[in-house]
Amino acid sequence: MEEEGNKLKGEEAFRKTRVPPWTKQITVRSVVTSFVLSVVFIFIVCKLNFTTGIIPSLNVAAGLLGFAAIKAYTALLNNCGLLKQPFTRQENTVIQTFVVASSGIAFSSGMGSYLLGMSPYIASQVDGGNTPINTKTISLGWMFGFLFVVSFVGLFSIVPLRKFIELKISIGMSQVMILKYKLTYPSGTATALLVNSLHTPKGAKLAKKQVALLFKSFCGSFAFGFFQWFFTAGDGCGFSTFPTFGLEAYSNRFYFDFSSTYVGVGMICPYLINASLLLGAVISWGILWPWIEHKKGIWYSADLPGSSLSGIQGYRIFTAIAMMLGDGLYHCIIMLIRVAYSLITQYLKKKVPSTVNHEDVDQNSSEDFDAQRRTEYFLKDEIPSWVAIIGYSVLAVISIITVSLIFPQLKWYHVLITYLIAPILAFCNAYGCGLTDWSLASNYGKVAIIIFSSWVGLEHGGLIAGLASCGVMMSIVSTASDLMQDFKTGYLTLASPRSMFMSQVLGTATGCLLSPLMFWFFNKAYTLGDPQGSYPAPYGEVYRGMALLGAKGFSSLPKNCLELAIIFFFLAVFINIVHDLLEHYETKYRIYRFVPNPMALAIPFYLGGYFAIDMCIGSLILFLWEKKNKQKAKDYGPALASGLICGDSLWSVPAAILSLAGANPPICMKFLSSAVNKKVDTFLSGGP
Amino acid sequence: MEEEGNKLKGEEAFRKTRVPPWTKQITVRSVVTSFVLSVVFIFIVCKLNFTTGIIPSLNVAAGLLGFAAIKAYTALLNNCGLLKQPFTRQENTVIQTFVVASSGIAFSSGMGSYLLGMSPYIASQVDGGNTPINTKTISLGWMFGFLFVVSFVGLFSIVPLRKFIELKISIGMSQVMILKYKLTYPSGTATALLVNSLHTPKGAKLAKKQVALLFKSFCGSFAFGFFQWFFTAGDGCGFSTFPTFGLEAYSNRFYFDFSSTYVGVGMICPYLINASLLLGAVISWGILWPWIEHKKGIWYSADLPGSSLSGIQGYRIFTAIAMMLGDGLYHCIIMLIRVAYSLITQYLKKKVPSTVNHEDVDQNSSEDFDAQRRTEYFLKDEIPSWVAIIGYSVLAVISIITVSLIFPQLKWYHVLITYLIAPILAFCNAYGCGLTDWSLASNYGKVAIIIFSSWVGLEHGGLIAGLASCGVMMSIVSTASDLMQDFKTGYLTLASPRSMFMSQVLGTATGCLLSPLMFWFFNKAYTLGDPQGSYPAPYGEVYRGMALLGAKGFSSLPKNCLELAIIFFFLAVFINIVHDLLEHYETKYRIYRFVPNPMALAIPFYLGGYFAIDMCIGSLILFLWEKKNKQKAKDYGPALASGLICGDSLWSVPAAILSLAGANPPICMKFLSSAVNKKVDTFLSGGP
Repeated sequence: MEEEGNKLKGEEAFRKTRVPPWTKQITVRSVVTSFVLSVVFIFIVCKLNFTTGIIPSLNVAAGLLGFAAIKAYTALLNNCGLLKQPFTRQENTVIQTFVVASSGIAFSSGMGSYLLGMSPYIASQVDGGNTPINTKTISLGWMFGFLFVVSFVGLFSIVPLRKFIELKISIGMSQVMILKYKLTYPSGTATALLVNSLHTPKGAKLAKKQVALLFKSFCGSFAFGFFQWFFTAGDGCGFSTFPTFGLEAYSNRFYFDFSSTYVGVGMICPYLINASLLLGAVISWGILWPWIEHKKGIWYSADLPGSSLSGIQGYRIFTAIAMMLGDGLYHCIIMLIRVAYSLITQYLKKKVPSTVNHEDVDQNSSEDFDAQRRTEYFLKDEIPSWVAIIGYSVLAVISIITVSLIFPQLKWYHVLITYLIAPILAFCNAYGCGLTDWSLASNYGKVAIIIFSSWVGLEHGGLIAGLASCGVMMSIVSTASDLMQDFKTGYLTLASPRSMFMSQVLGTATGCLLSPLMFWFFNKAYTLGDPQGSYPAPYGEVYRGMALLGAKGFSSLPKNCLELAIIFFFLAVFINIVHDLLEHYETKYRIYRFVPNPMALAIPFYLGGYFAIDMCIGSLILFLWEKKNKQKAKDYGPALASGLICGDSLWSVPAAILSLAGANPPICMKFLSSAVNKKVDTFLSGGP
Repeated sequence: MEEEGNKLKGEEAFRKTRVPPWTKQITVRSVVTSFVLSVVFIFIVCKLNFTTGIIPSLNVAAGLLGFAAIKAYTALLNNCGLLKQPFTRQENTVIQTFVVASSGIAFSSGMGSYLLGMSPYIASQVDGGNTPINTKTISLGWMFGFLFVVSFVGLFSIVPLRKFIELKISIGMSQVMILKYKLTYPSGTATALLVNSLHTPKGAKLAKKQVALLFKSFCGSFAFGFFQWFFTAGDGCGFSTFPTFGLEAYSNRFYFDFSSTYVGVGMICPYLINASLLLGAVISWGILWPWIEHKKGIWYSADLPGSSLSGIQGYRIFTAIAMMLGDGLYHCIIMLIRVAYSLITQYLKKKVPSTVNHEDVDQNSSEDFDAQRRTEYFLKDEIPSWVAIIGYSVLAVISIITVSLIFPQLKWYHVLITYLIAPILAFCNAYGCGLTDWSLASNYGKVAIIIFSSWVGLEHGGLIAGLASCGVMMSIVSTASDLMQDFKTGYLTLASPRSMFMSQVLGTATGCLLSPLMFWFFNKAYTLGDPQGSYPAPYGEVYRGMALLGAKGFSSLPKNCLELAIIFFFLAVFINIVHDLLEHYETKYRIYRFVPNPMALAIPFYLGGYFAIDMCIGSLILFLWEKKNKQKAKDYGPALASGLICGDSLWSVPAAILSLAGANPPICMKFLSSAVNKKVDTFLSGGP
């Protein structure tokens, strides 16, 4: 019985389902659906970029929404008797890949980080380096150009890499990672399981319910966003200024800001991340900053504006940067060591295996059948090597020329060097992501910033050079891991690598086209990067701060800031070491699960605790739900969360349009202290 | 199987459980518990009295809480090995009876209606009749005296009545109603079923879960009340001023005021009542009042303050009064006709039945056993006739003397006449309540107001006379129906009528003692009867308005108000006729279920729609719950609702204490229009 249940969960359930050829996996309807969903997801990612910069894995949401859209469409056609081609799971995977690729660009294009950090507005907030050569006014034209050349190189980079490895040890990189090392790629696997379950007859009922819940929470979240809007006449109005824990806590950015987006994000993110965020907020805004503010006038001038990097804001930014750098560097080094060690071991064990042996992947007959079938389809539609090699070479040359034209601060040899290091880092990142589901793309980008900004130097435009090289690096590295996640999904759903690649090309193009437009839209409607506004886009300042650190050294820091930054840098390294040691040597209680994540600790240093509280509320909901009914929480949690994220984020569209049209909400929900309230009441009643 | 299931639901499940003698049904622990619960319930009833005057049936909540309290106590003792006497359902019934009796006094004592209407503060709000002879400053002394003499007469009135009927046709009144007519007494039956289910082994698990939910919702509601408090620095602050549907709707009193009490009340009240309340609010505040306000300066002077009965407030009060009077009169008359008809038919059918025949009550063997056992216990412990007769006579005489001493405006013959009419009306009310669960006590009281205030006349203190006679009438009539509800519960749980009567005596005494104290407490902490405050106590003004109408005639009404009032009077009568005709002659779709309730229509005329919206939200929650899981909603709905009501109401105690202690909440949550907000922002930033 157990066995049978197991079998039906795997490929056995699909034994009689024909897998369509790869050309039938990319259909007009899937491309159209993908495009529409891409708009939605790029919008969501941009919004997240501009608020806190925390982007959860949206693979599952993309899979679910793609299914819902196509299912509605096919059901309609079926009812009219017009349905020619049934909706397959391969098609679903293709949609999901498209959407992930396009929204991945929205993240790696750095609209909320390195590109934004180039803008004069952010430059004006950061002391030092605010010179014409170190700023670049953001315009649609060069953004399109930059993104197209940079992103496609990233896309092609992994294919020749894969081919290169295949020539040597006869197994492509994706094959190495998926077939050989059996890396889990948690997000990719989860998406594949979801897609598979959606398409089995047994899964259809659950899928229907999931979609219904998603729709409900979407509508609820959208309506709540709409409702909130009415109360936001003027600054400091509305639910997002609700001093849930009192005015004192509010002034230290501890409050629940009623953002259903972040409650949803909190439901998707692991408990540990949310708890780490909250811990980081408590350490920084609860303890450290109030303490440093006591030193006002001693450590730093009391006359400085609150946003000056030479004042309290400097401590916030640079400790956060130090912690992120410490975490990133640790992971980069560890990853390089692990990958090298792992590859050497593999190479020594069996030299030149001619093809994938089933013994490598199988344990019992059920898995045997699954693996056999999956491997067969995974190796079927190869992308010709010459296409990939030519594509890569041509694009790399174009990219080197174009990038150095767009950013004269960055010379052609800088770009060339980036392209030489990038594939190795991309491989490391793809490997690490397969193990941990945590893409370190932005960490490699940060390393690039420090290297190139100090190389070029402040007076030659080191800031712009650093930020631009970060873009080049991030695009390649992040695309590599995204692609591998998708290949894992494709492997488990029998989608052809060729159709996957095609849909990634299309998705990337969509992303390159839409991300700058979305940026332009937000920039028109709101002030991006204003620390007090609704879109602080924290990474803009953080990334520019890093470049400044690289170009200027530590001279720009306020007193004791360097010491603090160094402490936090090593704290991040230390935490990681403790985590890894515990993970390896303490297997009884598995305490390592409770070691906070340094990256998550660092984010609220800059932003404060409000979104951490949102996310912890999401965690709490999920936790209570799991306590009540674990299976239900597991089945429906992602659907609820996706609905919350999408609904609230989508409300931003009409909200932004209303704002552009100059429509003002009718009511201000204001929170006044008892004393101020008395004054206001006297004022309103016309008293003295 | 079906049969067995049925049997186990009835007395069969208790076949082996010994029923303790009546002296063991009233125990020290039950009296103590009852007293504590009485404090809670009187507090809740007072709070409801002072906010909207809508009191839901609290029988079920009293039963549940009594069970929870004693169960916790016995479990504790049991664990310590000290438990001597197990907790029986009879004891539970006794507690419930005690609590219902005491909280019944909190309602019928007119703290929020006729007694409050005598106070100079209310008199100052109503134009006309604000003379010393027509007001009486409320003080604890005379309130205790008045309540004690009036309430106990009410209590004893039904016993001689019962005896009187028994002498004639050999069946006591309670026996007539419970055994013969098989009147349902819905609340009493529901409570009995609950108590029975709590005490069966199968019910214990459910009871535990119910109690757990009750506790949770209690804590949640209490915490939410606490949370709300922080935001109420100053007038017009806090959640209760939340313009949920915009400022325009708020100024017409359409908003959700986040009162968990009324959400809970809405869950207990039938859907029809809540819908009627909302409809009434829409008709009055949505259509009628805005239309009348357009006539400002034409129909009534534009210079009048908003609270003047000669202005817009007059239309509100008098149309509401007219509608309530129309509804009340219709029901009184119909009830008299029905009771007379019913008694005559019964009398003609079988003259002088010697005792209750089992054929009257039984259909099948299971019910036979139930009925036999119940009837046996119901007839077992009679209250001696001489006790009742002496008690009644002595108390009536004392009452006549005392009342006419406290209110010199009301002569002794007025009181005597009241005592002559009252028992008949009490019988009618008890009968009607058995049929419909709707006690008309306050309607009979209103009739008394009109009669006596016009008889005594304005210059001789007609207002006070009318209001006082209303008290005398209401106490008797309301006690009669409460008592019958309790007897029904007792009948179904095999509680002795004697223990029930004893606990009612104790409960009544508690009520007479605590209600004035509670009033004094609220009056100290807040301004009761302020239409703009948190405790508008609407019935104070309404009852005084009625007395004024009786004493002065229609001369005090603004223009066209009489016409409107007459229209609404007849509308109420018409709606009732339509309802009754449909109920009798249209049995297919049972449209009568959708005919609104005139009383419920009238209440929001004065208060506005906010509490109707709360209650409709309660309805909505229950509706969705029922749609999802009917049984669960039925099992847990009352527990959730009770928790909501009790938690929020109980928060009022610390809130009132904080207010008395002069502690001010730290934050004001204010809602300003966009324009006002701009002015305030300029003011706060120190601008011009």
